[in-house]
Amino acid sequence: MDNLSVDHLIGIEHLTTRDIEIIFQTADRFKEVINRPIKKVPSLRDTTIANVFFENSTRTKLSFELAEKRLSADVVNFSASSSSVTKGETLVDTVNNILSMKVDMVVMRHPNPGAAKFLSERVNAKVINAGDGTHEHPTQALLDAYSIREKLGEVQGKKVVIVGDILHSRVALSNIYALQKLGAEVMVCGPTTLIPKYIHELGVKVEHNLRKALEWCDVANMLRIQLERQDIQYFPSLREYTMLYGLDKKLLDSLSKEIVVMHPGPINRGVEITSDVADSKQSIILNQVENGVAIRMAVIYLLAAKIER
Amino acid sequence: MDNLSVDHLIGIEHLTTRDIEIIFQTADRFKEVINRPIKKVPSLRDTTIANVFFENSTRTKLSFELAEKRLSADVVNFSASSSSVTKGETLVDTVNNILSMKVDMVVMRHPNPGAAKFLSERVNAKVINAGDGTHEHPTQALLDAYSIREKLGEVQGKKVVIVGDILHSRVALSNIYALQKLGAEVMVCGPTTLIPKYIHELGVKVEHNLRKALEWCDVANMLRIQLERQDIQYFPSLREYTMLYGLDKKLLDSLSKEIVVMHPGPINRGVEITSDVADSKQSIILNQVENGVAIRMAVIYLLAAKIER
Amino acid sequence: MDNLSVDHLIGIEHLTTRDIEIIFQTADRFKEVINRPIKKVPSLRDTTIANVFFENSTRTKLSFELAEKRLSADVVNFSASSSSVTKGETLVDTVNNILSMKVDMVVMRHPNPGAAKFLSERVNAKVINAGDGTHEHPTQALLDAYSIREKLGEVQGKKVVIVGDILHSRVALSNIYALQKLGAEVMVCGPTTLIPKYIHELGVKVEHNLRKALEWCDVANMLRIQLERQDIQYFPSLREYTMLYGLDKKLLDSLSKEIVVMHPGPINRGVEITSDVADSKQSIILNQVENGVAIRMAVIYLLAAKIER
Repeated sequence: MDNLSVDHLIGIEHLTTRDIEIIFQTADRFKEVINRPIKKVPSLRDTTIANVFFENSTRTKLSFELAEKRLSADVVNFSASSSSVTKGETLVDTVNNILSMKVDMVVMRHPNPGAAKFLSERVNAKVINAGDGTHEHPTQALLDAYSIREKLGEVQGKKVVIVGDILHSRVALSNIYALQKLGAEVMVCGPTTLIPKYIHELGVKVEHNLRKALEWCDVANMLRIQLERQDIQYFPSLREYTMLYGLDKKLLDSLSKEIVVMHPGPINRGVEITSDVADSKQSIILNQVENGVAIRMAVIYLLAAKIER
Repeated sequence: MDNLSVDHLIGIEHLTTRDIEIIFQTADRFKEVINRPIKKVPSLRDTTIANVFFENSTRTKLSFELAEKRLSADVVNFSASSSSVTKGETLVDTVNNILSMKVDMVVMRHPNPGAAKFLSERVNAKVINAGDGTHEHPTQALLDAYSIREKLGEVQGKKVVIVGDILHSRVALSNIYALQKLGAEVMVCGPTTLIPKYIHELGVKVEHNLRKALEWCDVANMLRIQLERQDIQYFPSLREYTMLYGLDKKLLDSLSKEIVVMHPGPINRGVEITSDVADSKQSIILNQVENGVAIRMAVIYLLAAKIER
Repeated sequence: MDNLSVDHLIGIEHLTTRDIEIIFQTADRFKEVINRPIKKVPSLRDTTIANVFFENSTRTKLSFELAEKRLSADVVNFSASSSSVTKGETLVDTVNNILSMKVDMVVMRHPNPGAAKFLSERVNAKVINAGDGTHEHPTQALLDAYSIREKLGEVQGKKVVIVGDILHSRVALSNIYALQKLGAEVMVCGPTTLIPKYIHELGVKVEHNLRKALEWCDVANMLRIQLERQDIQYFPSLREYTMLYGLDKKLLDSLSKEIVVMHPGPINRGVEITSDVADSKQSIILNQVENGVAIRMAVIYLLAAKIER
């Protein structure tokens, strides 16, 4: 079978359209596996994977861990809170140590943009970026595009709007790259303060009116507001943000066609979207979560085939 | 073989006496397994279990994890400190996400009474309550009753006093239900301020004098004082609590018969019981811990048989 | 095959020279294993090991966990932050509970000197000391000596200087014991305030001038400064410490012969040693990490053979 043109998954930016298709076809097979009574395959019995998380994460870490276990890999977890990172060790030292212990693959989340690339250039192991600051979160974008393909048959030609805080989101950038490579039209929608200036260079439409954006699109990906980040000033207040950019059932039902609603989670119910929207039949939020495991199995499986034995 | 009348283990309240007997008989078999050199059985090789702990726990979590591993299940751990719970996600969203990842069973501890029931009504997976606030802690009550049965031959007709902070204890309520269903007589003993008003509705004796309670009973279950909870005012002070309700060797030896001493752990040595009592031959505290793994293997095994494949 | 003269690994102090040789020969075999494509052996499929860490640790815990998984043991992790230790439970209670769950071996890190010995005298399981306060850290000393043997052919007759904070280091004491038992000459080097008074009783040379120490030695083991410990006053300041006892490339290159540089990690780059020293070809720091897994596999394997079944 074909394999990827890359040795690491650092960002969607570096993937070809063919790479994405290979990942999707591999995920199709693994999706069958995880819907069987016996959800495991022995493929990676000889592979040790370290999940190295320098930032908290629930579902991303759990999703990777499940993907790894379903592939029968040996898994070790390392998170910053229980680590020597606080002892002043550098990123490379930490990871070199892990690699000297003969780990084959590192899944890393790190607060600094570029951390995954930096790492992949210095270590002798496959690296998967599980989020590097506000830069990329490639497996999220892959599972998002895969979920659109599953729901609508294909991504090619579809109109997708990403709504919310584009500026502080690694999900937005990775999604834009993935959707464009697959032939979708992409729009971003949010207040001016939360749209980065470089957005125009990416060939993306910008719309500040949510209703207009929703009327235009086939799919709306409602990003989450990072309430826990004190450094972000939501314009002009969270309450007004919700009034202007929150999606409720009334607005959804008033549109001239049925759109698909996505959310990368975790949802702030009543902020980005209301509960009845999250739980409506137009929502594919839980499908995204399910597809996350299949996509991550596919990426891990394909990169593991490139490990030099 | 017979199986349980329930699909989830939410509380002892919902079990029949027959259910408890089935669990005990299954635990008997697993107790043999964990005392063999090879302590593992391949029974749940196809089952993925998530341990979802929204509160700290040492032995309960470890006991479940060992039970799961001895059954060859795939185990993923999720604890609140490393989770998105702080990001404002609701309980159902968190668990739905875990379930969309195709987890078959959820073992959950949560600070809110009713959380396990709420969950079991909304998710497509077997739920085991590992403690929901001050409500129930069913596996603890099962292992306690199982340990009495092991020590005294049967539970039927035995007199059991539960001593201490009944008001804030999930262990007490589950124990009362389990012991009564198995035909034991139950008394609670403690200061008025730590006995809930509804206790009389449960058909339980109340005694405020520890010596009298101990003279009456066959078994004394000494609950732990939750020193770490700032919101509980121990009456009138911890020192006086220990003087009135602490069990030392002198008191134990002065009783007219030999009683069995239990403690759900972790022990505050010198508070509820002294070290010489905890380590005496009348104490079955470590048997309780050992039986905890067998009981949890039994519960998990029986509920796993109800998973729809 | 021969086995160890001890039932637990509490400290190098209690090992014979023959014990250390047996560990090294066993590690030789496991080092081959972890450099194969398939890095796992089924040896300990029947053994459950608990990693009980009452102090944070990155690499030691990860190294033990990998060693255990490569031996196919079942592994449960218990760390103080998620534990009942904060609930006032004593060490023995915590561990007795873990053992009542039928754990075969305990790897423990604890802040109190003597904790591992105390434990081994009271529990029915094999105990491996993963660091007990400022006392011993035997597996670190074993992997250090093993790395010298690997690099220089043998330890016998070699001159090794341990540089830095000897007073607060468990690595130093274990290293002194191991190196002496293997026939090396040992020197310690550091400011008077960081050299313990009892050092002279150990038959160790003391040198306060780093250049003189380095000129004397074949191997320099540069201990880390524990920046995170507020209770240690580095003499007279960290800046001056680095000027007097930090090793940079200029000093290293100015020596009359090529010495081997070691560091137990995590490195404070620019404090104990500069980056160019850490990454130089004279440094065997990453070999130490790699050998750590093999040494720990050997120790676990040898002690597991002593478990009574």
